[in-house]
Amino acid sequence: MAADKAVLFVDGRYTLQARTQVDTGLFEILQVPGHRPSRWIAEHLAEGDAVGYDVNLHTVSEIARLSKALEESGIALKPLGANPIDGLWADRPAPPDGPAYPHGLAFAGRSAEEKIADVQETLKSAKADALLVTMLDSVAWLFNIRGSDIKHLPVVIASAIVPVEGRPTLFIDPKKLGDNVRGALADTVEFLPPSELDSRLEALGNRKVTVTLDPSTTPARFENALKEAGAEILHRTDPCIAAKAVKTAAEIAGARAAHLRDGAAVVRFLAWLDEAAQDGGIDEVQAAGKLESFRADTGELKEISFDSISAAGPNGAVVHYRPMAATARKLEPESLYLIDSGAQYEDGTTDITRTVAIGQPTPEMRRHYTLVLKGHIAVSKARFPEKTRGQDLDPLARLPLWQAGLDYDHGTGHGVGSFLSVHEGPQRLSRTGTVELKPGVILSNEPGYYREGEYGIRIENLILVTEPQAIEGGEREMMGFETLTLAPYDFRLIEPMLLTSEELAWLNAYHARVRETLEPLLDEAEISWLAKATAALQ
Amino acid sequence: MAADKAVLFVDGRYTLQARTQVDTGLFEILQVPGHRPSRWIAEHLAEGDAVGYDVNLHTVSEIARLSKALEESGIALKPLGANPIDGLWADRPAPPDGPAYPHGLAFAGRSAEEKIADVQETLKSAKADALLVTMLDSVAWLFNIRGSDIKHLPVVIASAIVPVEGRPTLFIDPKKLGDNVRGALADTVEFLPPSELDSRLEALGNRKVTVTLDPSTTPARFENALKEAGAEILHRTDPCIAAKAVKTAAEIAGARAAHLRDGAAVVRFLAWLDEAAQDGGIDEVQAAGKLESFRADTGELKEISFDSISAAGPNGAVVHYRPMAATARKLEPESLYLIDSGAQYEDGTTDITRTVAIGQPTPEMRRHYTLVLKGHIAVSKARFPEKTRGQDLDPLARLPLWQAGLDYDHGTGHGVGSFLSVHEGPQRLSRTGTVELKPGVILSNEPGYYREGEYGIRIENLILVTEPQAIEGGEREMMGFETLTLAPYDFRLIEPMLLTSEELAWLNAYHARVRETLEPLLDEAEISWLAKATAALQ
Repeated sequence: MAADKAVLFVDGRYTLQARTQVDTGLFEILQVPGHRPSRWIAEHLAEGDAVGYDVNLHTVSEIARLSKALEESGIALKPLGANPIDGLWADRPAPPDGPAYPHGLAFAGRSAEEKIADVQETLKSAKADALLVTMLDSVAWLFNIRGSDIKHLPVVIASAIVPVEGRPTLFIDPKKLGDNVRGALADTVEFLPPSELDSRLEALGNRKVTVTLDPSTTPARFENALKEAGAEILHRTDPCIAAKAVKTAAEIAGARAAHLRDGAAVVRFLAWLDEAAQDGGIDEVQAAGKLESFRADTGELKEISFDSISAAGPNGAVVHYRPMAATARKLEPESLYLIDSGAQYEDGTTDITRTVAIGQPTPEMRRHYTLVLKGHIAVSKARFPEKTRGQDLDPLARLPLWQAGLDYDHGTGHGVGSFLSVHEGPQRLSRTGTVELKPGVILSNEPGYYREGEYGIRIENLILVTEPQAIEGGEREMMGFETLTLAPYDFRLIEPMLLTSEELAWLNAYHARVRETLEPLLDEAEISWLAKATAALQ
Repeated sequence: MAADKAVLFVDGRYTLQARTQVDTGLFEILQVPGHRPSRWIAEHLAEGDAVGYDVNLHTVSEIARLSKALEESGIALKPLGANPIDGLWADRPAPPDGPAYPHGLAFAGRSAEEKIADVQETLKSAKADALLVTMLDSVAWLFNIRGSDIKHLPVVIASAIVPVEGRPTLFIDPKKLGDNVRGALADTVEFLPPSELDSRLEALGNRKVTVTLDPSTTPARFENALKEAGAEILHRTDPCIAAKAVKTAAEIAGARAAHLRDGAAVVRFLAWLDEAAQDGGIDEVQAAGKLESFRADTGELKEISFDSISAAGPNGAVVHYRPMAATARKLEPESLYLIDSGAQYEDGTTDITRTVAIGQPTPEMRRHYTLVLKGHIAVSKARFPEKTRGQDLDPLARLPLWQAGLDYDHGTGHGVGSFLSVHEGPQRLSRTGTVELKPGVILSNEPGYYREGEYGIRIENLILVTEPQAIEGGEREMMGFETLTLAPYDFRLIEPMLLTSEELAWLNAYHARVRETLEPLLDEAEISWLAKATAALQ
């Protein structure tokens, strides 16, 4: 916002929404990426001007990049302690105040003490005196606590300072703390209210110590405060990120249990869909609600892990579609229906996409579905040596589509937390997946195909990277994937002629496993539906 | 070499040879990588010591790296104008003096003038006044000249200064210049003897101009001289590297003609091998010589493009094996024979590897050969979108081996020049192939499998990256590969049961193409051999 002009930069997914909800007489709407805030500022401000920024809302890296981009134009950035917009925001909701609760050792598999000791080892080798942790899922992971302050993400608003030796300090609103968390961490951490963080940062600075922080996630405010007080800053990737990606044995057992429970709910939903939706009477919001209700029926659902993408017909081609009651589309005969959804259970986070034929699918739909399935199977059954990176496997998912002159414009898979974020790093299956895969990492495997204005296809399972294992007749141990998700693919959309005998064997073995593992959780009608849905193809 | 100690650092491939040819009483032999010269220097010299280096033998980047590594130990690097070893080298061979000759437009497809204009454009956008070119294949490519100063590489020793405007100066021994080169480049370049280079660099420096050079290939001497004289140095990748990788229509037509000719020679050789070598009477050197003689019989062979790897039995597992007359191994029955060889023709450079059964192969040999072939076919028939990098395709060649617990420890493919180096950049099919593939790039496709002490398998064709093309039923144009190499795979080593119907179709189509295109160049006995060698498998 300049003195006489204002602009709102929004992600391409939200430009339409922004135009309806923002006064475009006052604000110009520009899409990022494409437009760059730094360019707009350089064009609309003059040399010597300054741009204020809210130190709480921008990371160290963002400010460094913007500052560098504006250097040439002679425009400075000026940190603002108080955001002038906050003063105008009269009806601002109160901050969330859900309680924190312990994430037990039976779920986490490693105590907070062990994790803290590991983090302190990384500080020792970096010759740092302390670490500042501000990412909410890192805090939750490190201290084995959870909360309900953020929708779909079971974390509590808190931050921490971990010294190289001794007890960390956890900055958290005392209102969120019950005896359960206080008891679990009594000997491990010092609790302080968030208002004490500034004085602690100042104290670190006064002692001239070296503090590591992650510039890509830490708000500028903390680095500014530390530097001003005299601390030495060491930029390092948050050490919790790589550590929490590798799941413990308890987290892996939890993920299997969560997927068994979730798979039964999904099968119930798919069986219901076959009965209720084939005549076009159900809409996207009703369908998503039904699936959520089956998940709630398990008695274990904490919340869904993201807003369901419940997309009928052409809406399936909108990759980040989210239905709204007023505009929800009906699931019409002779169309495809795509549902991408997940759940937060205390023992694990799930994320699954299935694409279902409503009525009779066209040969084209079957061909496209089968090409996507071929890529999905190629990833599922891949074996690969240690040091393999996500980017090495991403092309396997695309190759059947590439051979047919098709592709999709998103990554093949993202990391998934353990009763934490449904999107986490550092591993991913994509062109930019440069981090090596490690046994214990959970990823999604979700190739797709999108025909604009007609339909979208995506098939997604969560997969677990397995330990290197010997292969009969081989010489080198290979890692691989264990598929965690348990739910059938729609056999009406599969063209067996397009599958190799090895792909067919994988598919039939997976369907048999789905049937055998889920049967004990289903009633008779569901078992009979599942038997038909998972019958061997040839 | 310190005052009282001496060490020779050699590549792991040559440590054995070094031990037999070097006085190990005087020199310690250390293998790189593994041992690091910088560490040895830091351990054996003291703070304040200086290490001399020959400014002609080390690149700018090498010296920068070494200098940085020694900084902590307080050891300096000192450029030596004269290498003290040269003074002791009494029987040093005279420098090569083969003539330079023009590489005609019919082969090159673009004139030196056009290439120079393109390079000058890159200088303009980099705001540089001149470019120093020292890589011999860059000089040969830029000025459309060839020579015979380096074994297997048809280049002439020369360097050049290209100003942002006006005529470049080519520094070349006048003895190498005949009227043909002088005539072809009369209006285009100024010729000067190499002894004039130093004064020209000094002149550039005196004018305080900005000179770009490639630090990873330019000897330190030139940067030192330019800097001393006052020039500004701009480090840039040699612009000829990316440009010469993308072949012109004439070079592509030449490559096809060269591979046709070369394929006929290889088929003659393979037919001869089947007749002459099955009883164990032929050795590795004789076999390689025979193939070279068939290539020479074409009347077009300039020279072979590298020392042939002609490897019988267990020698095939030594990736960089090179036979010598005294120790050559016989091609024994019930073994595999691997020959990796190539030719320099004026219209193109070839590089081919075939692995052949001598006598009856074992089922294990057939299984391993077929797994390597599956990877080789996967690359050959891959379709992929623009922006695909070599590292995206490398895993396709390995996947069938990975699935079986096997792998190979080299890249899948390297770039190949046009009547230039058989190894060139910047594209490659490997884990480190981060450069995007472009239509017109020629690469090798050479997966392998090596069983130590028993046999080696490698299958190599050259492949040309094709323009993005529409695919029936598809939506996005895809690039792909045209296989240039024309010679059959050994059908006795193929297990058709391990191939998918698509792989078998590719193999049979390739064999049919080999047969149809080569028949006109072969005699009756060879045609009959080829018919059998390329009969359709099922």
